[in-house]
Amino acid sequence: MNIACNLDGSVDVTGCKLSIYPMKDQFVDIILGAVNQLNQVKLPVWSQTDLFSTTYRGRQENVVNVVKTACQLAYHDDVHTVFELTFSKGCPGDVDADRYLNEAIQPVIVPTELKNFHVDCKYSFYAFGDADYMQDIVHIVDLATQAGLKPQSMHYATALSGTVEDLFRYFDQALTYAHEHIRHYVIEATISVNSPSLED
Amino acid sequence: MNIACNLDGSVDVTGCKLSIYPMKDQFVDIILGAVNQLNQVKLPVWSQTDLFSTTYRGRQENVVNVVKTACQLAYHDDVHTVFELTFSKGCPGDVDADRYLNEAIQPVIVPTELKNFHVDCKYSFYAFGDADYMQDIVHIVDLATQAGLKPQSMHYATALSGTVEDLFRYFDQALTYAHEHIRHYVIEATISVNSPSLED
Repeated sequence: MNIACNLDGSVDVTGCKLSIYPMKDQFVDIILGAVNQLNQVKLPVWSQTDLFSTTYRGRQENVVNVVKTACQLAYHDDVHTVFELTFSKGCPGDVDADRYLNEAIQPVIVPTELKNFHVDCKYSFYAFGDADYMQDIVHIVDLATQAGLKPQSMHYATALSGTVEDLFRYFDQALTYAHEHIRHYVIEATISVNSPSLED
Repeated sequence: MNIACNLDGSVDVTGCKLSIYPMKDQFVDIILGAVNQLNQVKLPVWSQTDLFSTTYRGRQENVVNVVKTACQLAYHDDVHTVFELTFSKGCPGDVDADRYLNEAIQPVIVPTELKNFHVDCKYSFYAFGDADYMQDIVHIVDLATQAGLKPQSMHYATALSGTVEDLFRYFDQALTYAHEHIRHYVIEATISVNSPSLED
């Protein structure tokens, strides 16, 4: 059960709340640089920015693609940056994004060349409701293994390691599988790039 | 259901995974400064640091207090910093922290004076299992109102606003209530301090 299920709307909308944390004095420039480039594109999703994050909502494939592009636009080779993501679906609360459900799956065309880069990720998959979803959750972790993301158990989360393209392709696969088998679910993910701890 | 329930142990252990993101070139100094001060104290909790975060596990009151102190030690007046917290309880996976369950509730004594400061927070409370916990979750949000934290609904989360002392006192109350009524639960919280967006 999710405390945030307090708004009316369609349960078919996939949402993702994205926060970007560049560990840098110029963090504002980095975040706004990415956001401004995204805003020059007509995005196939609903979006809203608040003090903490930007929330994107609409058709799953487009939400995943927009969030991936935002992460790539905010990525800089020399900057340790963390991305915090909450994917959610099945929470009644998405009336104003319903019209985006009929958008075609489409790439996000930005003038910048999008890089592929190494990411480390921790994530938790939460399923809600009466049913026993253990087999489904095992399958979702198996999908990460098949994607080459080397899942590792840790307390309260699972670690993944790979490229940003592989990671978001996996998120899309995991969300697709969850959509077919689970009524209401959340993925909480934290993506880390260029951490100085990796050099130890 | 929580994907991370894959380690053996007592379900009575409360855990909190804490990440600290100072938006500053000197982020390493800030994080290590806080961690090193905490490490000079004999903490009444189990702890382990990985690439993403430090996990503290033990008796609820002590875990909350240690995490609060870590946030206060990492706080700097002029630095926009985000703290990411995952509280979890009821997930079988805590054998090596069991011995900390019998520790007395105790303050964390550090040589630095701990500040009280304004925080903005978004959080989600997740309850797992067959039962309908809606009334319990409504009560947990009511506790935030009583704590003066002005809960506001948003997509996929609830926003809170107050002081760091009030916020962690509330987390302790919410976890105590949850412990008495819910078998397995998670709080995902993001705390933001000194955001330049507050000046807009």
